[in-house]
Amino acid sequence: MSDNRESTAPDTVDVLLPWSGLDERHGPWPPNVRVHVWDGLSPEDELPPEVLGRVGLWVMPYAVPGAERLLPRLTRLRAVQSLSAGVEKLQPLLPEGVALHNGRGLHDSSTAEHALGLVLAAQRDLPQWVVDQHAGRWEPHFTRSLADCKVAVIGYGSIGAAVENRLLACEAEVVRVARRARPAEGVHPAEDLVRLLPDVDIAVLVLPETPATVGLLGKEELAALPDGALVVNVGRGRTLDTEALLAEVRNGRLRAALDVTDPEPLPADHPLRTAPGVLITPHVAGGSASFRPRAERLVVDQVHRFAAGAPLRNPFE
Amino acid sequence: MSDNRESTAPDTVDVLLPWSGLDERHGPWPPNVRVHVWDGLSPEDELPPEVLGRVGLWVMPYAVPGAERLLPRLTRLRAVQSLSAGVEKLQPLLPEGVALHNGRGLHDSSTAEHALGLVLAAQRDLPQWVVDQHAGRWEPHFTRSLADCKVAVIGYGSIGAAVENRLLACEAEVVRVARRARPAEGVHPAEDLVRLLPDVDIAVLVLPETPATVGLLGKEELAALPDGALVVNVGRGRTLDTEALLAEVRNGRLRAALDVTDPEPLPADHPLRTAPGVLITPHVAGGSASFRPRAERLVVDQVHRFAAGAPLRNPFE
Repeated sequence: MSDNRESTAPDTVDVLLPWSGLDERHGPWPPNVRVHVWDGLSPEDELPPEVLGRVGLWVMPYAVPGAERLLPRLTRLRAVQSLSAGVEKLQPLLPEGVALHNGRGLHDSSTAEHALGLVLAAQRDLPQWVVDQHAGRWEPHFTRSLADCKVAVIGYGSIGAAVENRLLACEAEVVRVARRARPAEGVHPAEDLVRLLPDVDIAVLVLPETPATVGLLGKEELAALPDGALVVNVGRGRTLDTEALLAEVRNGRLRAALDVTDPEPLPADHPLRTAPGVLITPHVAGGSASFRPRAERLVVDQVHRFAAGAPLRNPFE
Repeated sequence: MSDNRESTAPDTVDVLLPWSGLDERHGPWPPNVRVHVWDGLSPEDELPPEVLGRVGLWVMPYAVPGAERLLPRLTRLRAVQSLSAGVEKLQPLLPEGVALHNGRGLHDSSTAEHALGLVLAAQRDLPQWVVDQHAGRWEPHFTRSLADCKVAVIGYGSIGAAVENRLLACEAEVVRVARRARPAEGVHPAEDLVRLLPDVDIAVLVLPETPATVGLLGKEELAALPDGALVVNVGRGRTLDTEALLAEVRNGRLRAALDVTDPEPLPADHPLRTAPGVLITPHVAGGSASFRPRAERLVVDQVHRFAAGAPLRNPFE
């Protein structure tokens, strides 16, 4: 064990992880690693103070509010790995010199899969069939399909590309849109939305919330969509103008399938809940079983890199 | 116009189609084709008897019960195009010498898409979210995912392959199963199901109903599935043993998402409707918007082939 915060392999390193048993699934740890475990829920006093004083890499428990209370006790911390993609609120809490790494990519598969599920549920009338199942009805009707639809993926990054892969396999056509044009990738700029949207059947929002994206799909953009079009949001609620959407769904002109809303949680009496053609899920796109194995693979890789003194993946800024 | 039933192009031919306007969407008909239209719903007396006596190719209206009543009046019929994949009941009604062509392939995209929708709805708890939306709840929880799952596609034909394409795009793994082994395609035989199923998370049935497939997924096969596994059926209801499935879903060991049931329609008070973890849609997998353009392309191609005296596609037997 070394006192030197600048030391690299093969000195012994201490890492604090949210899960035990990773070595059973992913192979043995490097010999110079000492692994400690804290799930963020058990009292932190169960962790010996001398261990806390040695931890160099902390992989924070995922989605455990208040876990950051451990930070002041990690006196030799060099790197923090968050399993969230958004770490804007965590960053200011870190002491000078502690590197922050985020969980970008870990939620892509889960989020894209949920986006596809929302699209298919809306196109194939699944909410109606759920109601009919329990009402004792068997009244088949022709439905829309996803095949042959033109879908605008708005916010074309890694999740957007994962959405696109799934849409293409369903024989849909994809129009890529992002805040700024990326001609080499065929990505249109958001300014072109009003020109592009009259020609699409489905618009899928995969945008983070930034000052530039709030209200990006507003009244004018929604009005540009053709009758019967479907609006899907798996990004952030505020990127879609709720009042403008409500006006369009209430009169039956547009449909919507939303995993994120504004406000969130959506109040029990919010009119979106009962508007026709609206399907709502409670911000669960990223939180499914496919997250865990991807997170484990990242954590294992980061521990090996840390033990070897190599640069970690996913540095934030 | 020719009296000779054996005549080929470029003699004039009369075809009876279920839709008008195909030439507007798909280009002009060959000059030797006379197109007549009957949708199966309007009185057949509106069709002049001399036209009925000339029709050589009849494309039957899709899913119109009783349309076959026109057959005796089509005295010079040479070929019938059905838009259904299953034409077992139609075949005995045709006069000697009339060739039958079926609609295989037309429903692949729609059916595979619905199968994927059922899988995603079940894995991502969409029925629960639909109920919560209207009950005013916002109670997110982690769900299963499709990514990383191993899925047995049972009945690996053209629809099965279309299901597989969609599952692979969702990062699932596929095990191909059919009645008989096809080693060159990596297709396992149905006899191996009890050995294969303990290792799969999801079983998707895409089987036609034949004496050999009735009850193919029975008590023993269901028992071989691991706890929590999902059974999806978009083939025919009787290929799955309903009583055996009921026993497994009632105690919460298995889950199910069924577009076809036994019996069908499913009675209003049938216990499957209220069993936990069961999602039911009323045999709507094949009937979605993606059917029509595919059917139109087949019909236009068949008319061109018929006009040119060329062999038609999709001969049945």
